[in-house]
Amino acid sequence: MTIQMESYVQGSWHGPTGEAREIHNATTEEPMAVLSSDGLDFQGVLDHARTVGGPALRAMTFAERGALLKALSGAIHEHREELLDLSTANAGTTRKDGKFDVDGATGTLAAYAYFSKELGDRHLISDGDGIQLGRTARFWGQHIRVPRLGAAVHINAFNFPAWNMMEKAACALLAGVPVIEKPGTATAMVAWRIAQIVVESGLMPEGGWQFIAGSTGDLLDKMGPQDVMAFTGSAWTANKLRSNPNLIQNSVGMNMEADSLNAAVLGPDVEPGSETWRLFLRNVVLDMQQKTGQKCTAVRRVLVPENRMAEVKDELVAMLGEIVTGDPADRATTMGPLASAAQLRDVRAGIEKLAASASILCGGADPVHEKGYFVAPTLLEARSASEAIFHEEEVFGPVATLLPYSGTAADASAIVARGQGSLVGSLYSNDTPWVEEAVLAMAPWHGRLWVGSDRMAEQSLPPGMVLPSMVHGGPGRAGGGEELGGVRGILFYMQRTAVQGFKGQVHGCFGEVTA
Amino acid sequence: MTIQMESYVQGSWHGPTGEAREIHNATTEEPMAVLSSDGLDFQGVLDHARTVGGPALRAMTFAERGALLKALSGAIHEHREELLDLSTANAGTTRKDGKFDVDGATGTLAAYAYFSKELGDRHLISDGDGIQLGRTARFWGQHIRVPRLGAAVHINAFNFPAWNMMEKAACALLAGVPVIEKPGTATAMVAWRIAQIVVESGLMPEGGWQFIAGSTGDLLDKMGPQDVMAFTGSAWTANKLRSNPNLIQNSVGMNMEADSLNAAVLGPDVEPGSETWRLFLRNVVLDMQQKTGQKCTAVRRVLVPENRMAEVKDELVAMLGEIVTGDPADRATTMGPLASAAQLRDVRAGIEKLAASASILCGGADPVHEKGYFVAPTLLEARSASEAIFHEEEVFGPVATLLPYSGTAADASAIVARGQGSLVGSLYSNDTPWVEEAVLAMAPWHGRLWVGSDRMAEQSLPPGMVLPSMVHGGPGRAGGGEELGGVRGILFYMQRTAVQGFKGQVHGCFGEVTA
Repeated sequence: MTIQMESYVQGSWHGPTGEAREIHNATTEEPMAVLSSDGLDFQGVLDHARTVGGPALRAMTFAERGALLKALSGAIHEHREELLDLSTANAGTTRKDGKFDVDGATGTLAAYAYFSKELGDRHLISDGDGIQLGRTARFWGQHIRVPRLGAAVHINAFNFPAWNMMEKAACALLAGVPVIEKPGTATAMVAWRIAQIVVESGLMPEGGWQFIAGSTGDLLDKMGPQDVMAFTGSAWTANKLRSNPNLIQNSVGMNMEADSLNAAVLGPDVEPGSETWRLFLRNVVLDMQQKTGQKCTAVRRVLVPENRMAEVKDELVAMLGEIVTGDPADRATTMGPLASAAQLRDVRAGIEKLAASASILCGGADPVHEKGYFVAPTLLEARSASEAIFHEEEVFGPVATLLPYSGTAADASAIVARGQGSLVGSLYSNDTPWVEEAVLAMAPWHGRLWVGSDRMAEQSLPPGMVLPSMVHGGPGRAGGGEELGGVRGILFYMQRTAVQGFKGQVHGCFGEVTA
Repeated sequence: MTIQMESYVQGSWHGPTGEAREIHNATTEEPMAVLSSDGLDFQGVLDHARTVGGPALRAMTFAERGALLKALSGAIHEHREELLDLSTANAGTTRKDGKFDVDGATGTLAAYAYFSKELGDRHLISDGDGIQLGRTARFWGQHIRVPRLGAAVHINAFNFPAWNMMEKAACALLAGVPVIEKPGTATAMVAWRIAQIVVESGLMPEGGWQFIAGSTGDLLDKMGPQDVMAFTGSAWTANKLRSNPNLIQNSVGMNMEADSLNAAVLGPDVEPGSETWRLFLRNVVLDMQQKTGQKCTAVRRVLVPENRMAEVKDELVAMLGEIVTGDPADRATTMGPLASAAQLRDVRAGIEKLAASASILCGGADPVHEKGYFVAPTLLEARSASEAIFHEEEVFGPVATLLPYSGTAADASAIVARGQGSLVGSLYSNDTPWVEEAVLAMAPWHGRLWVGSDRMAEQSLPPGMVLPSMVHGGPGRAGGGEELGGVRGILFYMQRTAVQGFKGQVHGCFGEVTA
């Protein structure tokens, strides 16, 4: 029986009408559910958020909204097993990959509940210290941050249906802004189930949470200057959204997280067999295997000093050979299928494009199983790091290319910069001057840089993992946006306003409360 | 003799070729100069900034760049008298208005020299405290800010040829980013003379400063992901720039400061004749008169409690009647002409539009003198505050409209919000609960709010004055951008990057240096 996915808007659930889109089990290719947002009143959806959800959320303090996030985290966590099973069926994730998504969602909600403590029992944030503006302290200035009065429209990616929706929601809700969540279609079932849990929990004030199963229709054309949009997905779609005349006309705030060609760079000082060497190999393999390479933070370009290429190649091919591709419900499987037929088609085409300028060391574009959206872990070796294709073509699957380089920080940075902006870069070196030079040269092109070394190898979380305390986003091709980063992540949902006047009024009402 | 204005690009001056545009003396309408950027190689201009200017500026520390700003401020100040005369001729400013622009430019440069002290002898900014990311402090995170590697393209407004160019330049240069300045055409002579002073001073590293007299040609189509654009001008032009496919494609950072319909609100507690009452009247008149109303921060909508309307009207009309409109070179003149024939045409048309729903209390659309772009200070009284025209039509001249309201903070905020986003709002009240309610309700719609009261009246700077220590910009119609605000103002020119790794490396190289 095909499930009818529903949207939750204006306080009630609405099933699909009109022409519905089918989504599939990624392993069996069988239809699982249909969804459509045809007939929804998107003006009404926005108005409901603005006039019902917004006032209710803004009446709460940061501390109260933090408690709400904590409770939502708990409510979702209670359904963990069910969500992991659904993720396996709909998104093709192994249990481990499903946890990465689902626990990422509840963990980020809990982290934002924790971050709310520094904001306290208040309705605004005092931004920086007060400033004397006149001859004496009588004429005084104070910057504040207050919640925007509109709705936060979140257009989420298919690869993390749980985490990507809830990391955005956590920031908006803590800021005091109601959310309208639109999941990536191919894996919408996990998001839909979470939406049900949120609604059934009774925790959310009415209008604070709406969920659209299907397209956004004319929603973007109805947005106004107090609304904001955050998007995760392809650079192509990001550009299309950014070109929307209504969003431009109203200066609608847009936070874009798009494609990027993340690089890992092995430093010339790293000896084969050393702690850092092993960390490098482990993380490259992890990024290819985890979520079947469908992570926006996964490594696509692996820069290796020319004199280390032979050893790196041998070791990586051996490690990738141990990956077991198959039914993600099977405990022996270590890599599931891609999420959809469209992804499989794109990944195969991408491998063929790369292979025109590289040799395939393992894997390739050929089908792996008779049914399901499977592809083999595929490692390529570029003939030269200078070919444009390696810096332009992001293959969103278990695919990476080895690029030889001289070993200098300057050469590595110049090659990495050809990606035109990335979410994350990883460097492996114990040579601090080399690290400092490389980080400074690469920082303008990255939202995040991760440095692997002997001293942290045992304790580190991998570079592909987005932590709520550090910013996520990158310049240029990566979309130019910024999410998370602790309290930084909620500021996008707020207006900064400079207040000037008599110090007694300005500091008294809007200044930092010190205990 | 008509002056041939020149552009300074790629290290040399280039006079106009091709079809040149003429600019005029605002008082006599006589042609003063011609300018054209035809034939300039804009790809070369960008490359020069990126490859020559950027590296030179980035080699300097914040302290060194601060010293550069201080020296530039001094160099321009040495030519103050000459610049004031030029401003009078080309822009039609009285001496007082010219000072507001020219001293604003040198003052803002000096202020940013002062702000540089908190950034010290470094090349990067440590953004916030370091963060423990692992089980122990070994795995550590630190956010940093580093200069972008591209050019800052500044498209400036005609109304403040000196201040608007130099407040933007101050922020970019302190950040370490080379500038390409394009002045508003009608008043470009003041900007051009400053550009000459900057070049002749020999203070700027080559490539750090370029100046385009004329249009930007295909410059925007050549910009890349490390370049940024800041614009001040009309909402219409801001939207056009924001729609540029190349800027969208490359996620080029854009900081927009556009039109807004700023409001002043008289609180119901303010008694006629009181200190706050007089401050209110003085500031409304100042905003209309200063720069002949050509300030993006000037008040356009004046909200008055219904029971005070008669007295406000009488007093304002009397005060406006004392304004002497005429040749700005004449010391007796207190208000000069508008800056150009185009402005005069638009202001006259705007007055007529407003007058369809309001009565003209003084002034009007009729010509004031036979020659020159003069218009009379014009005060209107709306029949009802609810008419759309008062919240949509910005008349960029000495024109404001009185709007009656009930006196409640809620009603005032609702009326003010109809402007869809403003740079600055001013409130006049000694009733702190009323002020707190009004500020909180209006803050999401404003970049800045200014509260006038008895206790600060003697010491305050007026609301139309932009201070370098407070942010300038506003949501929605005002463009959604943000400039100035102390060190906040340079962050637009920098990339924020999260760095993760071994604490010894991360904190040692990138953490906050504590003495």
